[in-house]
Amino acid sequence: MNRREPTDSAMKSWNSVAIVGVGLLGGSIGLGLLRRQLTTRVIGIGRNETSLRRARDLGAITEFATEWDHERELPDLVIVCTPVGTVARIVLEFARRANDRVVITDVGSTKVEILQSIAAGWPGGPAQFIGSHPLAGSDKTGPEHADANLLQGRTVVVTPETATPAHATDEVTSLWTELGARVHVMTADEHDRALAWVSHLPHVVAAALAAVTPIEHLPLAASGWRDTTRIAGGDTSLWSQIVASNRENLQFTLEAIQQRLQELNQALLHNDPTIWERLLNEGRERRDSVAD
Amino acid sequence: MNRREPTDSAMKSWNSVAIVGVGLLGGSIGLGLLRRQLTTRVIGIGRNETSLRRARDLGAITEFATEWDHERELPDLVIVCTPVGTVARIVLEFARRANDRVVITDVGSTKVEILQSIAAGWPGGPAQFIGSHPLAGSDKTGPEHADANLLQGRTVVVTPETATPAHATDEVTSLWTELGARVHVMTADEHDRALAWVSHLPHVVAAALAAVTPIEHLPLAASGWRDTTRIAGGDTSLWSQIVASNRENLQFTLEAIQQRLQELNQALLHNDPTIWERLLNEGRERRDSVAD
Repeated sequence: MNRREPTDSAMKSWNSVAIVGVGLLGGSIGLGLLRRQLTTRVIGIGRNETSLRRARDLGAITEFATEWDHERELPDLVIVCTPVGTVARIVLEFARRANDRVVITDVGSTKVEILQSIAAGWPGGPAQFIGSHPLAGSDKTGPEHADANLLQGRTVVVTPETATPAHATDEVTSLWTELGARVHVMTADEHDRALAWVSHLPHVVAAALAAVTPIEHLPLAASGWRDTTRIAGGDTSLWSQIVASNRENLQFTLEAIQQRLQELNQALLHNDPTIWERLLNEGRERRDSVAD
Repeated sequence: MNRREPTDSAMKSWNSVAIVGVGLLGGSIGLGLLRRQLTTRVIGIGRNETSLRRARDLGAITEFATEWDHERELPDLVIVCTPVGTVARIVLEFARRANDRVVITDVGSTKVEILQSIAAGWPGGPAQFIGSHPLAGSDKTGPEHADANLLQGRTVVVTPETATPAHATDEVTSLWTELGARVHVMTADEHDRALAWVSHLPHVVAAALAAVTPIEHLPLAASGWRDTTRIAGGDTSLWSQIVASNRENLQFTLEAIQQRLQELNQALLHNDPTIWERLLNEGRERRDSVAD
């Protein structure tokens, strides 16, 4: 894993950028690019014209379309900000139309399945695809919450393949560093294994915890329950796609926590405090090693 | 379960109050009582003289002692703010000395075991004990973080027994409502069953989640992991005592989440999205029903 600091890259700009899916993240990227004068044209592509108009009025995009007009010149950079399950199809549509050098990236929370689908349908030609994943979760949604500094200080994982030309990786790296993020470069496989631990497992565990809590006890739910279950709120259809596309890694992590909880259950049954003290201490050490 | 709003009680004051264990919570109670002029004397009792002196200098207590002098007149109200495993012993020490009407309460996170130990050793006489549990968790510790408004808008559970005289319950209820909290009155048994779900299970699950996360993936831990594991940080010896004193209820809740996670694991194995969609949706509904 390589880590690239924002200062590693020279200032980069683009003639035009297309953002497919102008929600919180897509809108924030558009706003960030325009505010920092990294481009003068951001074309927002989406299904909902009202939402696209709002994004334009907010300054997150400069123009919009509900479909890409075949006659329209392709932008330098395409950023696909749609749910995981739709990314590959959209990337391939752009790749098929590319008649000039264009770099395509995405923001999907899993990478291996997307890369496999893209590889399977890749039309050849001059376009390049490099996967990205900005670790900028939020419980807000929609372009109305777009924030030009959403990625400031956040981490973005970029997952080039062996065959990816360096210029394309550099271009996608520049995109994120210009927006203030730190870039970690790793393989799609490394990414998906790591994210199963630090994102997908916490999500399903939080959902399970919320789901099992009897409604009648919720009036006594204080900050502990609220923190621990926070990520279970919000859009579950996005998360269902993420779970689907990282099943095997998630299963591996799930088995690890199941084993821990089973150990704890046995310790409670046999009233053996050494086991739960060890669990609590290991949890505290791991947690305290990460800044809040 | 009865819920009493702050406005239910007439203004109550005490000649003197003893607080045993002057940490964040004990210090905040002392500061709150003195600032609101609910008493003019708060006697802090603890083992660490440096810490007690600091609490006095901060205005959380007016005087202090490392042991209760047998000659000293007992206060109207004793609030035991020590770890769960030490509460009963301290309550009984005060009860044995009580030669006048004195009300004793505590702030322990579990109630049944404390009540049983107190009942087993109860010396008779005029003292009354009523358990309390302020739901005011914080990752801060020590009297230097004491806050006169820590309990403002928080919930405090009060657990009288059948034999507890109404005046004693009213007095403890007044204590918390005067400090700005909402009081829920329920049995110790109801309390411990509810808290296993909304506090103790989240704690051990957060600890397990933190403990299983491989160190090498922590650089990618973003807000989701941080929220979900937050309560695993902090003092584990307090939590070990809480787990010990609510073992059976905790086991029951643990089995419920283990079953959920096992269902999810099976669904991943058989690639059956309907199961994980249901889990995610149930988690979201339950979470969204509670304010953040």
